[in-house]
Amino acid sequence: MNGNEKSKMYHCWLDYQLHKKQSKEWIYGNQIYCAEDLLKEGVIQSAIDELKLFFLQHFDLSMDVVTKRPVQAHIALDVAETYGLKEGAYEMVAEDNQLLIHADSCNGILYGAFGLIQVIKRQIPVQGLKIKEEPINKIRMINHWDNSDGSIERGYAGKSIFYHNNEIIQDMGRIKDYARLLASVGINSICINNVNVHHYETQFITDIYLKDIARIAKVFETYGIRLFLSVNFAAPISLDHLENADPLNTEVREWWRKTAEHIYKVIPNLGGFLVKADSENRPGPFTYGRTHAEGANMLADAVRAYGGLVIWRCFVYNCHVDWRDRTTDRARAAYDHFIDLDGQFNDNVILQIKNGPMDFQIREPLSPLFGGLKNTNQILEFQITQEYTGQQKHICFLVPMWKECLDFDTYAKGENSRIKDIVSGNLFGNKETGIAGVVNIGDSECWSGNPMAAANLYGFGRLCWNPHLSSKEIADEWISLTLGSDKKVREVVSKILLTSRKTYEDYTVPLGIGWMVNVGHHYGPNIEGYEYSPWGTYHYADYKGIGVDRTMETGTGYVRQYLEPNRSLYENIKTCPEELLLFFHHVAYDYELKDGRTLLQYIYDVHFEGVEQVSSYQKAWKSLNGSIDQDFYNAVNEGLEIQLKDAKEWRDVVNTYFYRKTGIRDSKNRKIYE
Amino acid sequence: MNGNEKSKMYHCWLDYQLHKKQSKEWIYGNQIYCAEDLLKEGVIQSAIDELKLFFLQHFDLSMDVVTKRPVQAHIALDVAETYGLKEGAYEMVAEDNQLLIHADSCNGILYGAFGLIQVIKRQIPVQGLKIKEEPINKIRMINHWDNSDGSIERGYAGKSIFYHNNEIIQDMGRIKDYARLLASVGINSICINNVNVHHYETQFITDIYLKDIARIAKVFETYGIRLFLSVNFAAPISLDHLENADPLNTEVREWWRKTAEHIYKVIPNLGGFLVKADSENRPGPFTYGRTHAEGANMLADAVRAYGGLVIWRCFVYNCHVDWRDRTTDRARAAYDHFIDLDGQFNDNVILQIKNGPMDFQIREPLSPLFGGLKNTNQILEFQITQEYTGQQKHICFLVPMWKECLDFDTYAKGENSRIKDIVSGNLFGNKETGIAGVVNIGDSECWSGNPMAAANLYGFGRLCWNPHLSSKEIADEWISLTLGSDKKVREVVSKILLTSRKTYEDYTVPLGIGWMVNVGHHYGPNIEGYEYSPWGTYHYADYKGIGVDRTMETGTGYVRQYLEPNRSLYENIKTCPEELLLFFHHVAYDYELKDGRTLLQYIYDVHFEGVEQVSSYQKAWKSLNGSIDQDFYNAVNEGLEIQLKDAKEWRDVVNTYFYRKTGIRDSKNRKIYE
Repeated sequence: MNGNEKSKMYHCWLDYQLHKKQSKEWIYGNQIYCAEDLLKEGVIQSAIDELKLFFLQHFDLSMDVVTKRPVQAHIALDVAETYGLKEGAYEMVAEDNQLLIHADSCNGILYGAFGLIQVIKRQIPVQGLKIKEEPINKIRMINHWDNSDGSIERGYAGKSIFYHNNEIIQDMGRIKDYARLLASVGINSICINNVNVHHYETQFITDIYLKDIARIAKVFETYGIRLFLSVNFAAPISLDHLENADPLNTEVREWWRKTAEHIYKVIPNLGGFLVKADSENRPGPFTYGRTHAEGANMLADAVRAYGGLVIWRCFVYNCHVDWRDRTTDRARAAYDHFIDLDGQFNDNVILQIKNGPMDFQIREPLSPLFGGLKNTNQILEFQITQEYTGQQKHICFLVPMWKECLDFDTYAKGENSRIKDIVSGNLFGNKETGIAGVVNIGDSECWSGNPMAAANLYGFGRLCWNPHLSSKEIADEWISLTLGSDKKVREVVSKILLTSRKTYEDYTVPLGIGWMVNVGHHYGPNIEGYEYSPWGTYHYADYKGIGVDRTMETGTGYVRQYLEPNRSLYENIKTCPEELLLFFHHVAYDYELKDGRTLLQYIYDVHFEGVEQVSSYQKAWKSLNGSIDQDFYNAVNEGLEIQLKDAKEWRDVVNTYFYRKTGIRDSKNRKIYE
Repeated sequence: MNGNEKSKMYHCWLDYQLHKKQSKEWIYGNQIYCAEDLLKEGVIQSAIDELKLFFLQHFDLSMDVVTKRPVQAHIALDVAETYGLKEGAYEMVAEDNQLLIHADSCNGILYGAFGLIQVIKRQIPVQGLKIKEEPINKIRMINHWDNSDGSIERGYAGKSIFYHNNEIIQDMGRIKDYARLLASVGINSICINNVNVHHYETQFITDIYLKDIARIAKVFETYGIRLFLSVNFAAPISLDHLENADPLNTEVREWWRKTAEHIYKVIPNLGGFLVKADSENRPGPFTYGRTHAEGANMLADAVRAYGGLVIWRCFVYNCHVDWRDRTTDRARAAYDHFIDLDGQFNDNVILQIKNGPMDFQIREPLSPLFGGLKNTNQILEFQITQEYTGQQKHICFLVPMWKECLDFDTYAKGENSRIKDIVSGNLFGNKETGIAGVVNIGDSECWSGNPMAAANLYGFGRLCWNPHLSSKEIADEWISLTLGSDKKVREVVSKILLTSRKTYEDYTVPLGIGWMVNVGHHYGPNIEGYEYSPWGTYHYADYKGIGVDRTMETGTGYVRQYLEPNRSLYENIKTCPEELLLFFHHVAYDYELKDGRTLLQYIYDVHFEGVEQVSSYQKAWKSLNGSIDQDFYNAVNEGLEIQLKDAKEWRDVVNTYFYRKTGIRDSKNRKIYE
């Protein structure tokens, strides 16, 4: 299993270290009680394995598993439908001689076991403990953009842990450790291949790969995680030379039905399919003049008998735009494509909607599909991997950004119609809802390339479980579980994490303008790199101003997709939140912001300040030398050197760009290269 | 051989078609006389094979080869050292009953045979003919940037004809036809692998590949072409784990000596090595604190015994420049690196110098190394493949550009010290000189992707042979040999070819500014794509003006590398040739050009006019429908559609870029997108 031959970084927040002092305080003996029939359950075994591992490594205590309730103090695990807890929920109650974890399902016990470990690691007193924990979101999902050749699209943490050279990796050791990490934060669904389904991955649903994939599915299953596969909408053509993939073609429907039948024979617990269709040159129903509802429902019919789901991405837009055409607005695309289909999807179809209308920029408004779609299952898609947010070279804790999204009030049913209430299913009562995240892990020693980036994976899981948690709470949890409870460490790291998103935004692309990155790999500044491209990603900077007019009055009308009062808020430049000013408006460089600064001076200022912030991170980090694991320290230290260098590059390129464009100097006379 | 199963396009300018009328005029019978011992020579056989093929296909005449001089009219081939002709030269004399081609070498006869074919194809009367042709340049070389996996760096005409899947292609048929094409225009040297020598290609000089390469060498040898190999300067490390590749290390020197000994055993006629060292992350002598002279001489010592040459590229510059550093100027790099080494190279080392100081842009000044280096063998490097000049999608006849270069007066020995006189060896008496070109062919049916691009390969060969030929003469030759002698065809195609370079310049990047292309693949506009990159390729456009100040007075001092009067000419904005204005000066948009237009208006104008030109090409081309080979017609027609579309893209992106930067409208009120 996860022996100690691996580094502390490898174990992330599941790093268990001997705490001699704390060991004396443990009051529930060395027995785990569990009814005999429960022990047969893989998930319960996982829970017990984890507890045993933890007690051994943390307390140097060998736990015995007993099936008869002991007299002496013990931990008790119990599953019964009578507790009235929802799927995955658990209660943990400390009584005189037992610490009882009970739930209505095995998964609840597994989460409870991880919950107990967290309590102890965080040195929360066990005595008198009474915790009820339940997941707010039903689907808590990880998406992998792993390709079968081992590469990872937008991966910044090494190669895939699943594939190598177009074959499934045989050793399940690392995959099991990964399942532990995910289960420990409540993840219950995973899609293990890229939504861009290429040649080999199209064959994943055939016997060439299915048996090996079943082995992966089994590992995840014992950690309460259902496996999904991304499928190629044109698979009937690619795999069996059908004439087309028309979702209304009987032959095609029959092909998918039989294919699903076969897949579920090999992987009975498969969650279903994830589909990217008619997007960025992927095939889809548009080819046959069919709607996305017709496309998705066809697949949904095929998997329905097995309890399967079809998760259908809303990231559909024209990626062959003519930049000269100022009427087409990519931001409008998802809403325009899907809003009229509301209510037309089968009840085992889920639409997966990116948080923003563009593509995972450091700052975007929220997708107006949230609040727009009422009668459709939907899950929210975040990007944990830092494609546009520093590619794990830069520290950018994304939880505050995700929180903004979850807390956003759509006003769909009046005030307090927050996105988190939509994706939890509470607001509209949709059956299948939740959150998905494109993950940031690979085979790097610390999983996420930069060990600080693990905070994003941790935070993502925690928000899926409970979107009401604050960024600060999540940061604190992750820090103490990962780096220990030293006060200074917690203060320093917490401050870095909680300010890092704003810092990144400041030295890169502020005010919601987006893009300005190098083409293709998306790292580093290229202010006009995408300005005349076919991708629909423009900022229209000219000698007078910058930004995209998306108003109803004079712009692309994107604003109309929001419900009131958001619509009016965004429409009016005076009420538009300043952090999104250039997303919604084309603004003159000398426009006066609320604090009296001009737009241009603001741009200059935040770029200087952002770099200063990184500098301060570096200084603060160095003060931790010796206080934390040295490998972790070194890795972050090296990362910060790159971050500082590249933040300066961003600062100078952006400032010089605008200086060259305007000839206006920085009012504080700082160095802007000519 | 080249049976008629191949298309006309495949045969390029060696397309032989039956001309019934002309056949009656042939007056030298059906016998080729050649002395018996001469017949043993492979090159003579090639000449005879070509003549026989031509007479069969053009006149339907089977030529007999006889070794006793016939009484009746015949063609006579004769080689004797007594003619006093230089290597490769020939004389062709029409006498009463014989057409005599004589030379001092077999190669001369081969060129003479192709010369005769050209004369007949172009319908020049044979009677009374008296031609003396001699190559002006000793080395007339083709460089391939082919990789062993079959890809071609900067190739736009399919895959390599030499390699597939890291193996040498076994069928020599196409390679032989290629040798015929090259020999027909006088090429006598070829390097068959990319100057960026990667993993597999490093092994070309080992037994893994040598025997197969020897087969290729043999094919070229029978067409008078010597084969060269690009080698990896770090090969001793890569292949045999030597500790370093230090050129002064005895072990390294011995390694190369032994390696050369072995190579020449397998390929006795090998021309030598081509080396890209210390450039764009390639290894080189700098790693060991050695000069390029020390590096090149070490290799030269290794091949000297076998008559081998080392061709050493001068394309050495820092590709990790900080754009903020305005003192470093990539244009200076080649001169700065090599000028002080003049005279230090062995006499079997040749420096290969790109025409311009940057990298094959549509307009650059000439490299000041020409005229600067006096005591060094040197060959001029052109790029036939259209990396920055339309990638064979656009018609861009490069001969006029090459002519400008060859005719450029360096004033190295006073007036009339033209580059063509330097690379011919005439000016300084350097022993090994000539011209090399990075070729534009691949396995596409017409060799060059776009059949019009074959004119560049043809023209390159002709200029190597005789740099005094005019662009018009070369265009005319190519057209009539390829498309026949129809007057209208010749007029239309000639006009397109001869104006195409200026047209391309007009709608892309005028006035010598360069770059402004998409990063990496270099196709299509991206005005600031390279502006903040580490490649040293900037235009510094700001709200007032654009261009690089390379003057001595206020700029990077690059101008100092030229000899007077060029130096003063470039230094002064008033005397600087306008087509190079922005290469040498940073110029305000409202600067008045000689014709009274502002700089900006000129930029607008040429972009509109360039597109108009392409439009007129398209119209003119359509008028040829039915007059020429239909495949050729269609291919060019399709190309022109792409060219027109992409020319418009260039026009609009460039114009919009400057409009957004300045807010200044086109004085003629044409459409500029905002």
